[in-house]
Amino acid sequence: MTEPLTIWTYDWVPGGKSGPRGFVRDLRLRWACEEAGLDYDVRSVSFHHRGAEHFARQPFGQVPFLEDGDINVFESGACLLYLARKSETLMPRDRKGEAETLEWTIAALNSIEMVTVPWWFIGLSKGAENPLEGWVLQRLTHLEAVLAEREWLAAGRFTVADLLMADVLRVPKVKAAGDFPALKSYVERICARPAFKRAHDGQMAHFAQADPQS
Amino acid sequence: MTEPLTIWTYDWVPGGKSGPRGFVRDLRLRWACEEAGLDYDVRSVSFHHRGAEHFARQPFGQVPFLEDGDINVFESGACLLYLARKSETLMPRDRKGEAETLEWTIAALNSIEMVTVPWWFIGLSKGAENPLEGWVLQRLTHLEAVLAEREWLAAGRFTVADLLMADVLRVPKVKAAGDFPALKSYVERICARPAFKRAHDGQMAHFAQADPQS
Repeated sequence: MTEPLTIWTYDWVPGGKSGPRGFVRDLRLRWACEEAGLDYDVRSVSFHHRGAEHFARQPFGQVPFLEDGDINVFESGACLLYLARKSETLMPRDRKGEAETLEWTIAALNSIEMVTVPWWFIGLSKGAENPLEGWVLQRLTHLEAVLAEREWLAAGRFTVADLLMADVLRVPKVKAAGDFPALKSYVERICARPAFKRAHDGQMAHFAQADPQS
Repeated sequence: MTEPLTIWTYDWVPGGKSGPRGFVRDLRLRWACEEAGLDYDVRSVSFHHRGAEHFARQPFGQVPFLEDGDINVFESGACLLYLARKSETLMPRDRKGEAETLEWTIAALNSIEMVTVPWWFIGLSKGAENPLEGWVLQRLTHLEAVLAEREWLAAGRFTVADLLMADVLRVPKVKAAGDFPALKSYVERICARPAFKRAHDGQMAHFAQADPQS
């Protein structure tokens, strides 16, 4: 008996042009499950009222988190690496391929997103110069050099590292950060995968369902 | 025949009060090897001249990176998870313990360090208010609540997640961010481990060796 995985996300998030719909990180987990053919349910915690039960599962009051029988995992990056252990579609099984997938997954989190997310956050309050601008451009320039030479980040094939890196890079502000043709074509290519579309549609439908009927 | 692991770091970094000596991230790898009893050598790349060979190993021109026979791994977080697969001292072998170690390792990188490092970076240019101040305090407050209730982050025992989180939190500016008694005592406790001292002494000696004789 294989129980389906449960992906937990918010019951609702703001919509509209600047709302996070389509970018909430449950999408990463949906996408990985869609790629790997893993069954999953989606369940919700309240966006407006984050209580003790939520913090017990996600110590920073965020989403997503993943439930797999008696195992619970928070942090989207950790969930992706956890899911990657379940399916070779997400990560090769040879030592070298696994090491490459691991290093690029962490690079997406700790070399790219560590700069792009605070930079995006600071940019929300318009006005002053963004003190992280130069750092973002430097990191994207380095990544551009890598992706100008290869189709996939790790192991010569699609892995969970591409899924995560593309999700980090597809944020509109990051896409508009500068002229990076290899990054642009990489994001288009990875996000053209049918599993991304199913995950994205699933998230949009989930949040739309919670809107008051008009 | 087990070849020792090779940890690559810079040949030199600035010393003095604000220099990074004692905080360069090769320390994380040294520390993990010391905990696990894994043999390692330390080798250097030039701090001043970062050439194509360096970027081929570390696409962002940083250190550390790890060499294990024909396997190369960059990103300190990825290296730690790679080493954790070699030794139960760094990560338990049961599914639940492993999942907890993984989620807290990623939390250190992507929920705490993702905020503390850009915040520290912005703080280097004194003057304006730091736009990440509130976010740092919020994250540390959540982590304080966790560490007020438990001794270790994952699996009820020391893991590589504690090693990494303590290394993220021991940065002087982070330690001075606010009044967080549980974080303070956690960092003191984890950094009191003899393996930390050996790793720290090793890094300090490595960089001192490169200084011109006075």
